[in-house]
Amino acid sequence: MEFQEVYRRYRPELQQVEAILFDQLRVGEDALTESSGQLIRAGGKRIRPLFALICSRFGDPASDRTRVLRVAAALEMVHMATLVHDDVVDDASLRRGQPTVRVRFGNRPAMYTGDFLFAKSIQLLTTVERPDVHRDMARAMVRICQGEIDQIRDLHNWRQTLRDYLRRIERKTALLISVSCQLGAKVAGARADVVRTLRRFGYYTGMAFQMIDDVLDYVGDERVVGKRVGGDLMQGNLTLPALYAAQQAGRGKELAELLSGPPSAAEVAKAVDIVRESGAIAYVQALADRYREKAIAVLSGLEDRVEREELAVVAAFVNGRAY
Amino acid sequence: MEFQEVYRRYRPELQQVEAILFDQLRVGEDALTESSGQLIRAGGKRIRPLFALICSRFGDPASDRTRVLRVAAALEMVHMATLVHDDVVDDASLRRGQPTVRVRFGNRPAMYTGDFLFAKSIQLLTTVERPDVHRDMARAMVRICQGEIDQIRDLHNWRQTLRDYLRRIERKTALLISVSCQLGAKVAGARADVVRTLRRFGYYTGMAFQMIDDVLDYVGDERVVGKRVGGDLMQGNLTLPALYAAQQAGRGKELAELLSGPPSAAEVAKAVDIVRESGAIAYVQALADRYREKAIAVLSGLEDRVEREELAVVAAFVNGRAY
Repeated sequence: MEFQEVYRRYRPELQQVEAILFDQLRVGEDALTESSGQLIRAGGKRIRPLFALICSRFGDPASDRTRVLRVAAALEMVHMATLVHDDVVDDASLRRGQPTVRVRFGNRPAMYTGDFLFAKSIQLLTTVERPDVHRDMARAMVRICQGEIDQIRDLHNWRQTLRDYLRRIERKTALLISVSCQLGAKVAGARADVVRTLRRFGYYTGMAFQMIDDVLDYVGDERVVGKRVGGDLMQGNLTLPALYAAQQAGRGKELAELLSGPPSAAEVAKAVDIVRESGAIAYVQALADRYREKAIAVLSGLEDRVEREELAVVAAFVNGRAY
Repeated sequence: MEFQEVYRRYRPELQQVEAILFDQLRVGEDALTESSGQLIRAGGKRIRPLFALICSRFGDPASDRTRVLRVAAALEMVHMATLVHDDVVDDASLRRGQPTVRVRFGNRPAMYTGDFLFAKSIQLLTTVERPDVHRDMARAMVRICQGEIDQIRDLHNWRQTLRDYLRRIERKTALLISVSCQLGAKVAGARADVVRTLRRFGYYTGMAFQMIDDVLDYVGDERVVGKRVGGDLMQGNLTLPALYAAQQAGRGKELAELLSGPPSAAEVAKAVDIVRESGAIAYVQALADRYREKAIAVLSGLEDRVEREELAVVAAFVNGRAY
């Protein structure tokens, strides 16, 4: 099975999710409509809604699809909110190859656009009338914010451990993918053990996803990835490739010295080369593979049906991005 | 009755609210605990929880106080979140006479501290198990964000109308006070008509409150108010005193010219003088008085009991701040 085949199967529902997004964010406020609208139109693969939709198929076939669609849209809104706020914090100018909301509208509107998206996603969830779904989402949002704070705390810290890194990317990325799988299944009335299994699948998939994303910062093609190589290092965001080079490959002193002040482009390029030469890329890719395998292994706990294969295909797709 | 008397009566419950705040924000994350802790310790009058607690007394005396306390704490957390984000957006250095989170910890942690407080308040509300309360709060949060965006859109706009101003301060300030009254009563099981009346009382009180706050920006004593006179003008935030001076007192051209570029301290001081001389202060104070009177008039629709007087006393206190 190909990703495009899975995508085609869910396209009608993904389009409904899209319609909910547009409807929710059309609020008669020019600035907000424009900035949120830009975010929607910028697209992205809608991976979180897609996971939610696929996982919902493990529930009761007679369950209310409207609820599933709203949950899927709420998940994407939380995701968009974190993107907007990340771009403010990172002074980012490009997102998915497009100018960011921050660049087009300024930091202030970008911040409140993020707040607005958060609030709207909560408001949308209140129409789903499942207090347990609220609780899960609220808890996830709290932990995502903690992850963002972790990331700031760990900036420029060359002594952070693998465990620090893993915990950070769990909160930053894996959690929302995990919750997407969990809530898609839960709101459709899936059995508790199935919901748990899907949540774990989402966790492993999300962890691998972020590791690959962190690798792309060293080896990605700017025209494909839509962001600059070395951007993490430039900002002092030390991800696993850098930590491996520093700690396992003994290039720590060199890297720390290169990047001690606000680094020049040449210094960053040099640091990127050091990380590449250190074997870090292969190491992180191998670790991502192990998480990917765990995700697939978890799926074997589910009954054998087409959605199980779909999940595997989507996971392989998102974790096998070209570079 | 004096404000201090009312305050004393509610102090035990306000202390419980305080304990919930500390408990909720103690998360084992140094940066977050510090930045949120600073916010809690910086204090403030806890007006929103106080309104919620007083209004809850119009409900069923046998209702669960824990719920009321949690709602009160959640309201204060939303308020704190908006303060932190406002300070980022306003580049503010002082809040309640203390250095802001932004200044002490930086813009990035401040932004995520705000996000964290929003998420935590939602999470706390999920323990209250009242879907209608969620809905009201989510709706309020969405509108508060819209108000923030309005404020950005209206910056430097000398042609905005009184109606623009009123709508903006409704969202920015009156709404959360209004919702505090509404939800305090609702969660305690008050009758629907009583809840509505209290919400309206909160609305009028909040409107007057913001008008007075906007006046303080022109005539306040920095040592009392804890912020700089002329700060709004400095940022291009045109509140009613400035709009009155420009539109009713015919000083618009002068003001717009003075403040056309990024203004110097001297230009701001000159503009403040123009606004003061224009009669704007008396005009806005009179308008605030009308809203205050409406708030009191609304209260007459409630049964005659001590809490009705308490509300009037607290409203008079928050709207009669010394300047």
